[in-house]
Amino acid sequence: MINIGIIGAGRIGKVHLESISYRVKDATVKAVADPFMNDETRAFVEGFGVKEIYDDYHKILEDPAIDAVLVCSSTDTHSSISVEAINAGKHVFCEKPVDHSIEKINAVKKALEGKNLKFQVGFNRRFDHNFAAVRAAVENGSIGETHIVKITSRDPEPPNPAYIKVSGGIFLDMTIHDFDMVRFLSGSEVEEIYVNSAVLVDPAIGEQGDVDTAIITMKLANGALAVIDNSRKAAYGYDQRAEVFGSKGMVATANDTLSTAVLSNADGITGEKPLYFFLERYMESFATEMRDFVDAVVNDKPVKVGIEAGLQSVLIGLAARKSVEEHRAVKLSELL
Amino acid sequence: MINIGIIGAGRIGKVHLESISYRVKDATVKAVADPFMNDETRAFVEGFGVKEIYDDYHKILEDPAIDAVLVCSSTDTHSSISVEAINAGKHVFCEKPVDHSIEKINAVKKALEGKNLKFQVGFNRRFDHNFAAVRAAVENGSIGETHIVKITSRDPEPPNPAYIKVSGGIFLDMTIHDFDMVRFLSGSEVEEIYVNSAVLVDPAIGEQGDVDTAIITMKLANGALAVIDNSRKAAYGYDQRAEVFGSKGMVATANDTLSTAVLSNADGITGEKPLYFFLERYMESFATEMRDFVDAVVNDKPVKVGIEAGLQSVLIGLAARKSVEEHRAVKLSELL
Amino acid sequence: MINIGIIGAGRIGKVHLESISYRVKDATVKAVADPFMNDETRAFVEGFGVKEIYDDYHKILEDPAIDAVLVCSSTDTHSSISVEAINAGKHVFCEKPVDHSIEKINAVKKALEGKNLKFQVGFNRRFDHNFAAVRAAVENGSIGETHIVKITSRDPEPPNPAYIKVSGGIFLDMTIHDFDMVRFLSGSEVEEIYVNSAVLVDPAIGEQGDVDTAIITMKLANGALAVIDNSRKAAYGYDQRAEVFGSKGMVATANDTLSTAVLSNADGITGEKPLYFFLERYMESFATEMRDFVDAVVNDKPVKVGIEAGLQSVLIGLAARKSVEEHRAVKLSELL
Amino acid sequence: MINIGIIGAGRIGKVHLESISYRVKDATVKAVADPFMNDETRAFVEGFGVKEIYDDYHKILEDPAIDAVLVCSSTDTHSSISVEAINAGKHVFCEKPVDHSIEKINAVKKALEGKNLKFQVGFNRRFDHNFAAVRAAVENGSIGETHIVKITSRDPEPPNPAYIKVSGGIFLDMTIHDFDMVRFLSGSEVEEIYVNSAVLVDPAIGEQGDVDTAIITMKLANGALAVIDNSRKAAYGYDQRAEVFGSKGMVATANDTLSTAVLSNADGITGEKPLYFFLERYMESFATEMRDFVDAVVNDKPVKVGIEAGLQSVLIGLAARKSVEEHRAVKLSELL
Repeated sequence: MINIGIIGAGRIGKVHLESISYRVKDATVKAVADPFMNDETRAFVEGFGVKEIYDDYHKILEDPAIDAVLVCSSTDTHSSISVEAINAGKHVFCEKPVDHSIEKINAVKKALEGKNLKFQVGFNRRFDHNFAAVRAAVENGSIGETHIVKITSRDPEPPNPAYIKVSGGIFLDMTIHDFDMVRFLSGSEVEEIYVNSAVLVDPAIGEQGDVDTAIITMKLANGALAVIDNSRKAAYGYDQRAEVFGSKGMVATANDTLSTAVLSNADGITGEKPLYFFLERYMESFATEMRDFVDAVVNDKPVKVGIEAGLQSVLIGLAARKSVEEHRAVKLSELL
Repeated sequence: MINIGIIGAGRIGKVHLESISYRVKDATVKAVADPFMNDETRAFVEGFGVKEIYDDYHKILEDPAIDAVLVCSSTDTHSSISVEAINAGKHVFCEKPVDHSIEKINAVKKALEGKNLKFQVGFNRRFDHNFAAVRAAVENGSIGETHIVKITSRDPEPPNPAYIKVSGGIFLDMTIHDFDMVRFLSGSEVEEIYVNSAVLVDPAIGEQGDVDTAIITMKLANGALAVIDNSRKAAYGYDQRAEVFGSKGMVATANDTLSTAVLSNADGITGEKPLYFFLERYMESFATEMRDFVDAVVNDKPVKVGIEAGLQSVLIGLAARKSVEEHRAVKLSELL
Repeated sequence: MINIGIIGAGRIGKVHLESISYRVKDATVKAVADPFMNDETRAFVEGFGVKEIYDDYHKILEDPAIDAVLVCSSTDTHSSISVEAINAGKHVFCEKPVDHSIEKINAVKKALEGKNLKFQVGFNRRFDHNFAAVRAAVENGSIGETHIVKITSRDPEPPNPAYIKVSGGIFLDMTIHDFDMVRFLSGSEVEEIYVNSAVLVDPAIGEQGDVDTAIITMKLANGALAVIDNSRKAAYGYDQRAEVFGSKGMVATANDTLSTAVLSNADGITGEKPLYFFLERYMESFATEMRDFVDAVVNDKPVKVGIEAGLQSVLIGLAARKSVEEHRAVKLSELL
Repeated sequence: MINIGIIGAGRIGKVHLESISYRVKDATVKAVADPFMNDETRAFVEGFGVKEIYDDYHKILEDPAIDAVLVCSSTDTHSSISVEAINAGKHVFCEKPVDHSIEKINAVKKALEGKNLKFQVGFNRRFDHNFAAVRAAVENGSIGETHIVKITSRDPEPPNPAYIKVSGGIFLDMTIHDFDMVRFLSGSEVEEIYVNSAVLVDPAIGEQGDVDTAIITMKLANGALAVIDNSRKAAYGYDQRAEVFGSKGMVATANDTLSTAVLSNADGITGEKPLYFFLERYMESFATEMRDFVDAVVNDKPVKVGIEAGLQSVLIGLAARKSVEEHRAVKLSELL
């Protein structure tokens, strides 16, 4: 049984608190820290029997009884808190992205060197039932050698344009999950990227210097090709599909729905829309990733999504941005 | 916040313990009783922070701090414990079937008379996402007037033939859920039943005087027709589908699977089999029914599956048995 | 190359004329006869290069150059014309039902005795791509031993109530196809039938002494059970599905649609309705049955749907009617 | 009623001969010419009642009774024969591609100027039931403004590598259909293209200087983005899908199969593979395009796929080739 401290009690911090409390054996949340702790959040946290609630996360880092911390604070603090936590001897689960700067991610990487500490990045979709099934089919040879990886990833609603600047734009905020998914499904690194993009959903997004619709193609180190299509707004909800095509066949997923009910009437044959909100769609995956992290810590196993995944996904995101700016294919090696 | 006592710590009792502990607000399990309480079960129960663990369920009935009890004991004790609990002033959630005897179910009904106590029967499938969606479509008029209710219900494996005698046979043990589903989906009572059945899965089931394959047709009070097809063994897993056809259209469900992944190769286009085990398939529905029961108790709302559902389902089951024995259509009124 | 004469130039006679002209090698339509031949029909027939057009079908029977005739006249003339054609030495393709009377069908059977003539009944659905695929799966052992045969057969629109009397009612007019399908898919005879039926679509149908909604269960000679559900009116179109369940699995079909296009929008995920009209839905099967008949004649092969299929389907239909009238299970042997 | 002459009696010429003979009213094939006419082909052609069979296509052009010609000869002769036919006053249906050279296509365009003659290019997929349904949904506003057009187009088997040189490579031979489909579905011109490609199926294709796997992205004049993914070999058969995503939703197609039968057994839930061969998959579309061409000629309507479609598709193909060679995005305007 290990003790966990959660740093950052926003939406995702609360999700992890609930998962660990109810759905993860071998771990207890001992403390939660958030600089903006308010009464509502405090009551929520106490509801799970957590007694140590702080404004200052250093209290967590200083507690020798805490084995691992979850870094769920704002993105710009992920890397520095991670380094502090590592130096305090804590295992770290860090939400994505680790940072927008390769340098800062490398600092985390360096901090980890020579220490027997786990560091996991919050790419929860790897733990999703559908994507895990696709990966399993690729891994067990069902489709032979991988030729094409295709990901469709469309949000139900665009973010507030004001958020764009903070978020680093579509590639570091939204597509970063898809970049990680390409690496996960293919088991290969991305070598080159070309982005074909546009502002079609909301001109205000364009005014922030970002795009809202994109088709992104990549060359992978294993020779395969990949393609992602993104939109910030799908009228029918959250569209999250993957397809991997290879020498022996193809594996593909459909969206999850609330039920399988289909209505047949004079208007047609109508099924339900995809689950709309990412917390509905991916709730199970958050619990699974947490179980996996705790398992890695408790049983000293390698984490499934380590610092390299954190680094590569941001690197691809930055290369995507450069491809848009320079209107050409960009090799990842150019950014190193 | 109400306190609950669980009577019977077998498989289903444990499921409810976990649901209430983790997934139901407003309720706590205060005590668990089981005459065959062993170390393993005791440890399991304690793991949820329950401190009062008994062999004798009367300790639960005598505890004035307990508001409601779950009757999860063996079927032959359901009705008598329910009556005792009611007389002790407890709200009751009783697993299905309430009893194999109409007389004993009527005894429970009588005990409830004049008391402001909730009594819910454990027809969890009413709370399943798929069946609830079908019911919603019927209720909101999407299919017009109901003409035909069709249920496919096939188990992945037959029970041990020795269990058949105790269980009351296929109609009281397995089809009883489907009988309740016909009532639920149609919103109508069953008036007449005819059973076409056979022993095709396992001759040992026939030797116990039971059947393992059946097509069951019914006339409903609202004029609609219903049909259930049952098998004790579907090679592809647990097959649980419903279809309701009416004047304006049809609503139908498919089976749930672990993922939506589909493999296309030289052999065909292959998706996953249905979830195999009833606890996997219906896990969510157990939590939902428990939330609903607690909500009914806490907020003094009517329960959604009351004693009448318990009575009618058994009545239909007994009529089904009679139809097989006498090889004719049987009216439910004949059994009253 | 054989010469064919078509007797009856109504809707189905025209379909066969077109199939043979365009889609069947080894056969030519040499003559067409219809007592109600009009200018429009004459022009249609001439359009296919047919030069011999008669009011009186005896001209066809008398023509020694004609090898085979298609009996597409009104139902009450099927059996007598068939007998005449057989006695004239012609191979016969006869539309369904051969007759409403078992006696008259037996007369055809008797006429065939000792003659080396082909006699095929127009159960075109056996030649449909979907139902043929189900039968193939049953036949090649993919589902093991057959336990349950399920057929859903619902028309898009009820017939004119005036037609009911002539047609012999739902069982001899509409369900007869499904009865034949049960025999085809199971490869077994029907032994007993029970009908649960109602008038839910149109009271005028009830006034004609017929029903419009039915659930029909059967016991088959091979021990399997079968069930058909019928409605005279499905708001979403022509619903034609089959499912066969056995010891090793299940094979099932969905409806055909005009295209696979699916629209996803704020209202849901909507595909097309089934093909609405039986001529759209089954057009291919009419050509295939004709090719098969011609092949049987030219190459002296057994026909796939002979007089026994014609007889048994009517026998089941009459037993169904008796079951409704007497409100009990009826054995087919009672009618012999 | 018009008379048609077919020039080139290879596979596709024969398909058109059969379509016109059996499935197109208002047209007759009067003559067929092929420089390699052999006995087998001659017998096939005669089987449809065609009496004028030539080695030299000029006999067709010289026949004043022939209204229209189908140019089904080898690709390198398409444009010159088309020009001759136009100059002889014939309406022309020309197989795709019109030519590999923009100059030669422009010569055809020029020949057409000022003449009231129809010229249709053989992009049959526009007349396919699935793609036509997608286009209809786009056209009637069901998906709002188009944002993304996605096409998956994978062949069941790669061509003989020797064919690659003659064919002009994957983009002019195979993807040309998809380029036309992008224009058809979007109703917009392609402005810029970027190709990400590889040789993954057969190294012999690479040795011919071609690729066998590609992800192709485009910018369209209406602001939308498009993407095509191609493979020369899909182990599960001919994969032909389209998806169009817009401001109000998405419309997408699945592959056609021989039947809807699905087998459920211990191995999974398995449906049929897509129709394997392009002639099976697109047979209906060949008849429909022919009916449309004849309708345009007979009723003096505009053709649905004119010379501009022939020109633009080749232009995109040449730009795709340039993109691969120069490893950059190529504007179509660069090639003019």
